Parts: sequence; structure tokens; C-alpha cells
Amino acid sequence: MSLDRLIEKIEQMQNPTVAGLDPKLDYVPEYIRKRCFEKYGETLKGAAKALLEFNKGLIDALYDIVPAVKPQAAYYEMYGAAGMKTLYKTQEYARSKGMYVITDGKRNDIGTTMEAYAAAHLGKVKVGSTEIEPFLGDALTVNGYLGSDGIKPLLKICSENDKGIFVLVKTSNPSSGELQDRLIDGEPIYEVMGKMCEKWGEELPGVYGYSGVGAVVGATYPEQIKTLRALLPRTFFLIPGYGAQGATAADIAGAFDKNGLGGIVNSSRGIMCAYQKQRVSEHEFAEAARREAIRMRDEIMAQVGKIVING
Amino acid sequence: MSLDRLIEKIEQMQNPTVAGLDPKLDYVPEYIRKRCFEKYGETLKGAAKALLEFNKGLIDALYDIVPAVKPQAAYYEMYGAAGMKTLYKTQEYARSKGMYVITDGKRNDIGTTMEAYAAAHLGKVKVGSTEIEPFLGDALTVNGYLGSDGIKPLLKICSENDKGIFVLVKTSNPSSGELQDRLIDGEPIYEVMGKMCEKWGEELPGVYGYSGVGAVVGATYPEQIKTLRALLPRTFFLIPGYGAQGATAADIAGAFDKNGLGGIVNSSRGIMCAYQKQRVSEHEFAEAARREAIRMRDEIMAQVGKIVING
Repeated sequence: MSLDRLIEKIEQMQNPTVAGLDPKLDYVPEYIRKRCFEKYGETLKGAAKALLEFNKGLIDALYDIVPAVKPQAAYYEMYGAAGMKTLYKTQEYARSKGMYVITDGKRNDIGTTMEAYAAAHLGKVKVGSTEIEPFLGDALTVNGYLGSDGIKPLLKICSENDKGIFVLVKTSNPSSGELQDRLIDGEPIYEVMGKMCEKWGEELPGVYGYSGVGAVVGATYPEQIKTLRALLPRTFFLIPGYGAQGATAADIAGAFDKNGLGGIVNSSRGIMCAYQKQRVSEHEFAEAARREAIRMRDEIMAQVGKIVING
Repeated sequence: MSLDRLIEKIEQMQNPTVAGLDPKLDYVPEYIRKRCFEKYGETLKGAAKALLEFNKGLIDALYDIVPAVKPQAAYYEMYGAAGMKTLYKTQEYARSKGMYVITDGKRNDIGTTMEAYAAAHLGKVKVGSTEIEPFLGDALTVNGYLGSDGIKPLLKICSENDKGIFVLVKTSNPSSGELQDRLIDGEPIYEVMGKMCEKWGEELPGVYGYSGVGAVVGATYPEQIKTLRALLPRTFFLIPGYGAQGATAADIAGAFDKNGLGGIVNSSRGIMCAYQKQRVSEHEFAEAARREAIRMRDEIMAQVGKIVING
């Protein structure tokens, strides 16, 4: 199953982190924006081309040390169809460099509509007698509020195409508790959702102990991470909230098992805007991103220890 | 606020229904598919052009009797960037005919990422010094699992641009109860979410008694509709599940107040595939859709009675 491929890459690189590609136009160095606007005008296409060039520079700087990228769909949708083309081109470029691609879409719907999202992001569509991949994710984040009808259509397509999903369980934001922390028979909703992930995951067993159904668990809630790791032994965690949202490497230590497996930690702004934080020229955005990715890897690996997989 | 415009159109047409545009390629008449594949090949663009032609035919047949369309984002995303261009073109065409556009995206995220979705679907983006509307919805469906951090960024953009949202409360699918019916302090989650909608709606008050924050409530749960109508007096309902999912006009009667306001009922497949059900030529797909839209309107209005707005 698909998360096995992610786990293998994490082990090869001894690096359980993922670079979030959430490219706001403001993050893109001015020289890139200017060049694209001169060529394509101040249009959605001009913006989308600038994002793509920025992303390619980041991928070139990261692909040999970071196992995965996580493009956030919202920042591509924001530039319309042209932006969605940049999402595809970004995924294609990352894939060509051997990176694992997690599309952060938090998609959700039911039945045939969820099948349409699954085909869009993890499968193929048939046009006449031709099969085409509309987007190129290896995994997709999804929202489980609609129950099994919203998840089961994904499992089939994941199984057929060697892909995975990450279901929102305990999100990193301050108000995540408004609903997720409320108690059902004494048990918080995020635990109920987490247990549903374990159950759905039975249909996508993995060779390293973790299924193809992962969970999104925020780095900003270290106690809940620990509890969920114990409660969900076969569920791999995608962990946002490190860095810009305030969580530290120590906060996420509880996500990992004795083999150093169990989670992948995301950083978006920290990596994309490293050149601003390091106060270097915008022409050095890629080098700055690499320095930050290495710093982050070392900080997290100091908590995790050696990563060992036993096939 | 934006739902006021929807309510006005519903009253003008005496028709509380919305045509769902969820165009699977299989639903599109073969003569349209063939023509588009001949011109553009068996490509995502060929598929997307076929969907657009189908949608335009449906809109032409419906715009003077049906107040709104609800394109389902999944069926456009399924054809990649070309599909997203068809989503835009469909919205643009519906808007040009005076229809209210509800984009069914069930989007969800937090903070600046939710702002990106809001800009994409309900607002504008700035490219250099140029402002552009990436997509053209009047309202967007959203998922509230992440709490207020996922909804508040929308309220600001709705207020600035005269737009609305519909939050998933009690969805129409069989497994919706797995999470949504679970009890928190004796109260089902869908009621807790519904009350959050009422509260969020305080920031977007409307002139006809309903706020700019609506709720998605499935026609397949008539008892829950009645309860929620009583509990959420200022929340307008978007009601899926009529027709293809088995709910009848009587099932949705409880959504409406004494003035015949309070909800809008969706039909997707029933309208799009009316030509198949009526066993007429595929060349008559638009006329068949119009007949079905009229039948549905009359069936629902027999339950609702006269629709009166008091501004």
C-alpha cells in the first residue's frame, strides 16, 4: 500500500519531514514574479507560472534530502484553472525527482462524488477509451465528517492504484477543540475519528505495520499525539503545526514508535520563506530552504533517533 | 447578505429548488461527447468541453424557472485543470443568465489557507495590481469539522463580497449518523454543528430572517429536518437527497417556515438524466430536464404553499 512507499523513503533519507508547498504569491521572490508578469501579464496564468517556478526551485533544493512534498490545494485553486495546472505540474516535477506527493485537499463527499475526487487525485479517469491521471498525488488528505460513505470509495481506488489517505483527526488550529474535543460517551471526538481510521485501515494493510489510512494530528497538541499513538498502533500520522504554528520538535516526539516510525512532520512557511527569515537575497530562496530543511531534519531526528524498518 | 439574493429569486420564481450540475461524462449525450472528442481528442480538454456544452444546454432550459444551480466541484476536478476551466465557464454562463450559483466544494481548512479557498470561490485575488475572480460562486458549501478557525475567514469575505456559505450539518447519506448522530451531553453532533451555524450567522444577518450561514441538511432525514428547523430559526437549509437518493417532497416539508421559506431542495441526476428516465432522444436532454424541473417544482410547492418574503 502506498504509505509503505512513503515509509521507505523516510527510512532511506533518515528524515521524517515533508515540505509543504503552500505558495502564496507574496512568498515568491520578486524577480520571479516580475519575470512572469512581464511574459504573461498580471493574470492568473502569470501568477500560476510564478508559483510553478518557485516550486521547482524548492523541489530542486530539497529532493535528495526530503522524502515528500505536500502541496496545499487551496493555494492553487486560488489562481483558478491556471493554478490547478500549476498543481499538476508541481506534482509531476516532484514525482520526476522521486518525491512522494501528498495532496492536501481535505476533500470530502459521498458515494459517486467521493469516487470523482478519488479519481481526480489518486486514480485515473476514462475519456472515451483513453485513461488519464488528472492530478498526480500519492496520497490525499480527507475529512471524515460524513462517515464511511465518504471514505470507502477512496479505499478501493487506493488499493487499485497503490495510494493512501490521511483523515483529519485532531487538527493543529486553536479552535480544533470546539468540536473535536467534545466527549461522546466520555471519549473525545478525535479519538472516535481516530478509531474509525484504524478500522478503515484494515482494508489497506501495510508491510511496515502502518495501513494506507493515516491521520492528521496537529503538532500543537503533544498530549493528544501521545494518546493517539498508543490508541492507533497501525495509523501513520501527518503532523502539521511545527514551526510557524509554534510547535517544537519535543512536542511531536510522542508520534513516533520505538523504531522511529509513525509520523511525518510538515513545514510549509518555515521552508518556503526561509530566505526571508535568514535575511538573505531572494535569489538564494532555494539554498535557504535547503538549510532550513536540514536544520529541521536534525532537530526532529534528535528526538526520533534512528529510523528502522523491518519489512 | 448573499442568501437574501437567493431568497428573492426563490420568491420571484415561486420555486425553492436548485439544479445540481454534477456532470459525469456518462450523463452527457453521445452526440455531444463525439463532437468534442473529434475536435479535441480523447483528452481532459475534450471531456471538459463536452461537460460545458451539456451544462449550457441545461442552463438554457432552466434559467427562467429555476433560481439556482449547484455545480459539484468533484466532477470538474475529475478532469483536471481543463475541468476547472469548465467549472468557471459554467458559473459564468449561469451568472449571465441571472442564476444564483452555489459551488458545492465542501472545502475546509484553517486561517490563511481557508482565506485562500474563500478568495478562490467567493472573493478576488490580487495579481500585481490587478484583482481577479478565480471562480464565480455566490455561495460555497463548507465542512465545519475544524471549528471556528475554518469558518471565520469565510465570514469576512462573504460580508465584503455579498456571498454566503452552507455548512455540512446532517448529510443525506446512510452513514452520516456514524459521527453526526453521536451524542455530546445528550445532544447529537449535527445539532451542535447546527447551533454553531446559528452563532456564526450572527455576523452575516439577512433582511428576510435568514443569515448568510446556511446548513446542509439531507432530505433523507425528515425528522431531523423538522427538529433542526425549530432549533435554527435563522439558518437557511440546502437540502440534498431528493429524488435519486429516495426522499420525497413530503420528507422535506419540515424545512419550511410559515412563509414557505427556509430551504432549497437540490436535484442533480433527476434533472441531468431526465432524458434517460423519460426515454426520449438524447437530443431532447434539455427539454426533458425542463419537464422534470417543472414536475419537481410543482411537487414541492404542493407541500410548501405560497412563498412570501417580507423585507
